Amino acid sequence: MLVVMRREATPTEIEAVKEKIRSLGFMPHEIPGVQRLAIGITGNRGRVSADHFLSLPGVVDAIPVSRPFKLVSREVKAEDTVVRVGRDSIGGHDLAVVAGPCSVESRSQILEVASMLKEMGVRFLRGGAFKPRSSPYSFQGLKLEGLEYLREAAEKTGLHTVTEVKDTETLPAVAAVSDILQVGARNMYNFSLLERLGELRKPVLLKRGFSATLEELLMSAEYIASKGNYDIILCERGIRTFETSTRNTLDLNAVPLTKKLSHLPIIVDPSHGTGAWDLVVPMALASIVAGADGLMIEVHPHPDEALSDGFQSLRPEKFRMLMDRLRELASFVQRGCPEEAGTVVQ
Amino acid sequence: MLVVMRREATPTEIEAVKEKIRSLGFMPHEIPGVQRLAIGITGNRGRVSADHFLSLPGVVDAIPVSRPFKLVSREVKAEDTVVRVGRDSIGGHDLAVVAGPCSVESRSQILEVASMLKEMGVRFLRGGAFKPRSSPYSFQGLKLEGLEYLREAAEKTGLHTVTEVKDTETLPAVAAVSDILQVGARNMYNFSLLERLGELRKPVLLKRGFSATLEELLMSAEYIASKGNYDIILCERGIRTFETSTRNTLDLNAVPLTKKLSHLPIIVDPSHGTGAWDLVVPMALASIVAGADGLMIEVHPHPDEALSDGFQSLRPEKFRMLMDRLRELASFVQRGCPEEAGTVVQ
Amino acid sequence: MLVVMRREATPTEIEAVKEKIRSLGFMPHEIPGVQRLAIGITGNRGRVSADHFLSLPGVVDAIPVSRPFKLVSREVKAEDTVVRVGRDSIGGHDLAVVAGPCSVESRSQILEVASMLKEMGVRFLRGGAFKPRSSPYSFQGLKLEGLEYLREAAEKTGLHTVTEVKDTETLPAVAAVSDILQVGARNMYNFSLLERLGELRKPVLLKRGFSATLEELLMSAEYIASKGNYDIILCERGIRTFETSTRNTLDLNAVPLTKKLSHLPIIVDPSHGTGAWDLVVPMALASIVAGADGLMIEVHPHPDEALSDGFQSLRPEKFRMLMDRLRELASFVQRGCPEEAGTVVQ
Amino acid sequence: MLVVMRREATPTEIEAVKEKIRSLGFMPHEIPGVQRLAIGITGNRGRVSADHFLSLPGVVDAIPVSRPFKLVSREVKAEDTVVRVGRDSIGGHDLAVVAGPCSVESRSQILEVASMLKEMGVRFLRGGAFKPRSSPYSFQGLKLEGLEYLREAAEKTGLHTVTEVKDTETLPAVAAVSDILQVGARNMYNFSLLERLGELRKPVLLKRGFSATLEELLMSAEYIASKGNYDIILCERGIRTFETSTRNTLDLNAVPLTKKLSHLPIIVDPSHGTGAWDLVVPMALASIVAGADGLMIEVHPHPDEALSDGFQSLRPEKFRMLMDRLRELASFVQRGCPEEAGTVVQ
Repeated sequence: MLVVMRREATPTEIEAVKEKIRSLGFMPHEIPGVQRLAIGITGNRGRVSADHFLSLPGVVDAIPVSRPFKLVSREVKAEDTVVRVGRDSIGGHDLAVVAGPCSVESRSQILEVASMLKEMGVRFLRGGAFKPRSSPYSFQGLKLEGLEYLREAAEKTGLHTVTEVKDTETLPAVAAVSDILQVGARNMYNFSLLERLGELRKPVLLKRGFSATLEELLMSAEYIASKGNYDIILCERGIRTFETSTRNTLDLNAVPLTKKLSHLPIIVDPSHGTGAWDLVVPMALASIVAGADGLMIEVHPHPDEALSDGFQSLRPEKFRMLMDRLRELASFVQRGCPEEAGTVVQ
Repeated sequence: MLVVMRREATPTEIEAVKEKIRSLGFMPHEIPGVQRLAIGITGNRGRVSADHFLSLPGVVDAIPVSRPFKLVSREVKAEDTVVRVGRDSIGGHDLAVVAGPCSVESRSQILEVASMLKEMGVRFLRGGAFKPRSSPYSFQGLKLEGLEYLREAAEKTGLHTVTEVKDTETLPAVAAVSDILQVGARNMYNFSLLERLGELRKPVLLKRGFSATLEELLMSAEYIASKGNYDIILCERGIRTFETSTRNTLDLNAVPLTKKLSHLPIIVDPSHGTGAWDLVVPMALASIVAGADGLMIEVHPHPDEALSDGFQSLRPEKFRMLMDRLRELASFVQRGCPEEAGTVVQ
Repeated sequence: MLVVMRREATPTEIEAVKEKIRSLGFMPHEIPGVQRLAIGITGNRGRVSADHFLSLPGVVDAIPVSRPFKLVSREVKAEDTVVRVGRDSIGGHDLAVVAGPCSVESRSQILEVASMLKEMGVRFLRGGAFKPRSSPYSFQGLKLEGLEYLREAAEKTGLHTVTEVKDTETLPAVAAVSDILQVGARNMYNFSLLERLGELRKPVLLKRGFSATLEELLMSAEYIASKGNYDIILCERGIRTFETSTRNTLDLNAVPLTKKLSHLPIIVDPSHGTGAWDLVVPMALASIVAGADGLMIEVHPHPDEALSDGFQSLRPEKFRMLMDRLRELASFVQRGCPEEAGTVVQ
Repeated sequence: MLVVMRREATPTEIEAVKEKIRSLGFMPHEIPGVQRLAIGITGNRGRVSADHFLSLPGVVDAIPVSRPFKLVSREVKAEDTVVRVGRDSIGGHDLAVVAGPCSVESRSQILEVASMLKEMGVRFLRGGAFKPRSSPYSFQGLKLEGLEYLREAAEKTGLHTVTEVKDTETLPAVAAVSDILQVGARNMYNFSLLERLGELRKPVLLKRGFSATLEELLMSAEYIASKGNYDIILCERGIRTFETSTRNTLDLNAVPLTKKLSHLPIIVDPSHGTGAWDLVVPMALASIVAGADGLMIEVHPHPDEALSDGFQSLRPEKFRMLMDRLRELASFVQRGCPEEAGTVVQ
């Protein structure tokens, strides 16, 4: 249910509607629009009748929401959501590029990468510190040490950091360091983690599970939003199919379809989506033309020596070429793209 | 790596091998066999050489393990694992049947079901208290209240309980009540939860993720075993495919293949595996003939009123028929099946 | 649309209904039942009104059929279809076993196999002569020469033959020799071939495409039936999924679901359905318990030397064990199973 | 095996090599390159030794081909294949657009569409006359009548025609009319049809089966090439996955991967690949950026009245917008795109 307020509704009228919602056992969510404010109603106490609200002062209408996802749907909010991170943003005019190694492997590695990326115009630095791996005997990341290095790299370069949250136990440590909290594909159904992220006030990068339907992805975003955190960035990263010649099948259909169903920004990770470094550039560019708000790319100075995912990581010179192509393409999709920053003086 | 001890190896010799393993930065796992003891070596510090062990007293051989899963593989332990729960077991001679409602919905509901199931010969009672649901607005289970009712039902009937662990936060509460801790399909890749379960000494029922390969299922079991808990029951519950006429595609190939690759018991959940009550009985029986050690079946006294999964729940009279058929079939697979218990005096 | 006739309807009344159907541009299909005759109406000239028939003499009712498949649906015919082949049948009381090599490789090979199978109680001999292969450079079968050998083996043993029809060009040659015409998984959508098979009066064994939904399988059966051939045997042989540890995922859910939706018999091919000889026996037995009317099994005297699919073929001694187990199991499903025939005198 | 000839090899030397290949029971294929001629060897009589050729005059080298597909692989021919159709081509500098209705529905419909498309700069007209449909009761196309209308539309506009070949029976009629012969997704494994198309000298548009791996697609192309027809255009049109929010999952990874593995041109059909008209434009543009040589688009003047696939057809005005965007994008991928032709005088 969405309660639409009149443009000139007063704070008192708005508060009265929210109080009414709470009194019925539900939770109100203010959804500011360009024209007017709406108030979303969520909760699991069954249906609520529009009659409760239509007669309240300042209320224009009370509209049922047809989709199972509510707060993240276009029905509830027509304008695109822009997630702001410092002076940058994801979902705004500029295409956003998140780049960096799969894992933080050493202090020198992440400092070297960060410095190069900054110079190439990247604003968001990725790097895993807590790595969920299929085998308990594989490299699990540098953990707290990795977070330290990531923080140092960010401070030295001014880049914003994106790193994965593996579980609720390590969430506080990660949240203390990272600007954007990444939920990996394997955790997309980890509803307890999603709820905890919903209680924070930090942007969340939510990756699609490799066998999750788009509706399930949006329902997982709804878990976060239902707790009051609306700064959610979706990420398509490939799904699991019968085709084995690529690591995953990158589902770019998901990009325009998500844009139609939801107001949230969506970026694409062609590194995982293809699993092969030589497919990354064409699929990265295709993602942008399909309507993505940005990219997430694995870059490693020495892919052959990477502790994880080297085969799908771009070398810096290849990545620079991608950035150049991206700048050429940006105007075609009526977006901007950050310019090269020149050499960073450390 | 598997260090095989001589049959007459002394405790001191065994301890010396384990100490050597620890000194190299790895973890030793005693794997008792009918003939002799073996000691598994796990850890993520790279490869370990057999030379460290071959010259130690009491050591027969040091064998590399070819599969990515080690402790749960047949290579490491040839005998079937029998998970004991009180005087009953899963993986032993008798077929094990876990039955009950999807969710504990009320005190009277779970007491009524438990009493009926006990009478029909069932030894394991299922019932969800913390329910992971795709929508934050769906019924999420009775939570602690549900655990209480489940415990009461178990005490009144003498049944063992199986309930899902949704996250590490609620794990202590669930572990305090439940005899077997269930990991749901959505949590199969939740490695932090698996590790916590590995530190407990309670049997774990590990459901296959709906898009997990068999190798991934066994790797998740390895996460639990690597922490020292070897009481793991696998559960095939259907995978996600292009076929939409059933809720999932029950992959019974997984049963004989798992038996070949691993010593762990495996049971089958045809309720989720088909998503249709009228397919449950034939697929339950087929599972047993394919080699499963038991079944997990949703039973509800009034499926039409169930708060979740009613469409795939058996009515008690239909379930009784399944139990009768199961007893007929048990001798064909050279297994036993618990007899009807008669009316329970409460 | 299904026109149900009164039990005592006369041939003249029946013919009048059929003539009316034809005059409207549709095709009538007599569907004999235990109690009364029904007349199915098919065609692609849009909908037809019940009013045309309700007033005709001998007509009880005219019922719309809700499923997209009509003639093959349970709605139209409640009784199980029994496909008769000589004095044997598929879909009747006895379980039917179709066995033999993937390909006819030589005269001696097929004669040797046929003789052994006959002795073990098998009534249906399979063997490919025209083999559709993914590569144009793979062995494509012995073609006409293979058909000759197959015919000779059948004549010497009295077995019925099942062989694949690869295309309409070779259909006449195959139909001249084989008792049952097999449509392979890759041809399930070859509607032109299906229509030609519908015009013949020979039983068709229709294999499910490896990515076909059950509804599509039944629609392909409908193509055959719509041309007047109702002797159709369905065959589940595994579908393509993300799981690569088995060649295909055998979808046994399809067995009870097909039985519910259609009156046609269904058999299962666990050789292709698993792609591993050591999974064939458990999955064959599971198929029967799931409700299948029979099995299709690849048997080869020397699997290591087979020109195709050796890895999934049973050796004769293993197959004999399967037949023994099948006889034990038959009474459980209230079916019969042919006894061993003893040595065949040639 | 690929026999590479010296640049100055004489016709007599070339013929001697081909004769040698034939004498060994194989088939020679001349593969002209920019620098020199190579001769591919195919056949299914086992392996052939390089020694047969290395000593022949004019031979530089004899190289084994590692992939299962030979003639269509990049190993055998490094240069891109350009399929010429009259004065136009697919795989050359200009992006190729194939557009038109799913089915030819009437003379006026196809004439109207063709005229509009011509004006917008399209060079290839699609339209189905023989339609393979899942149900025998669905509209099956206008058949010969449809071919007539298609021919008339082509003659009036000068467009080249693309229409589906449903089976070998109707192949001659279709081949007499159509400039490019389309193999639909359901026929990708119809090897008999592919071989017949290999014997013709008309370009073939080979659509990927909706559950075919890329390797299988290339093997099917190899069937055509192995018979001597190298004018093959591949077409990605979406694969079948668990995701049901779109009709298919368009696998754009296939585009750059195919380009790497094969020298054949590949186009993309986003109409079937998405199944939703409002996703067609972004996915069409994304396809081009991923590296596709062109597009296949369903356009219908009145989608609501279409006899098939109306929901995924673009209206003419929407399609014109796509063409405009395509022209903007062409230079980014260093390709050309036909200009608008202005009104066609009939």
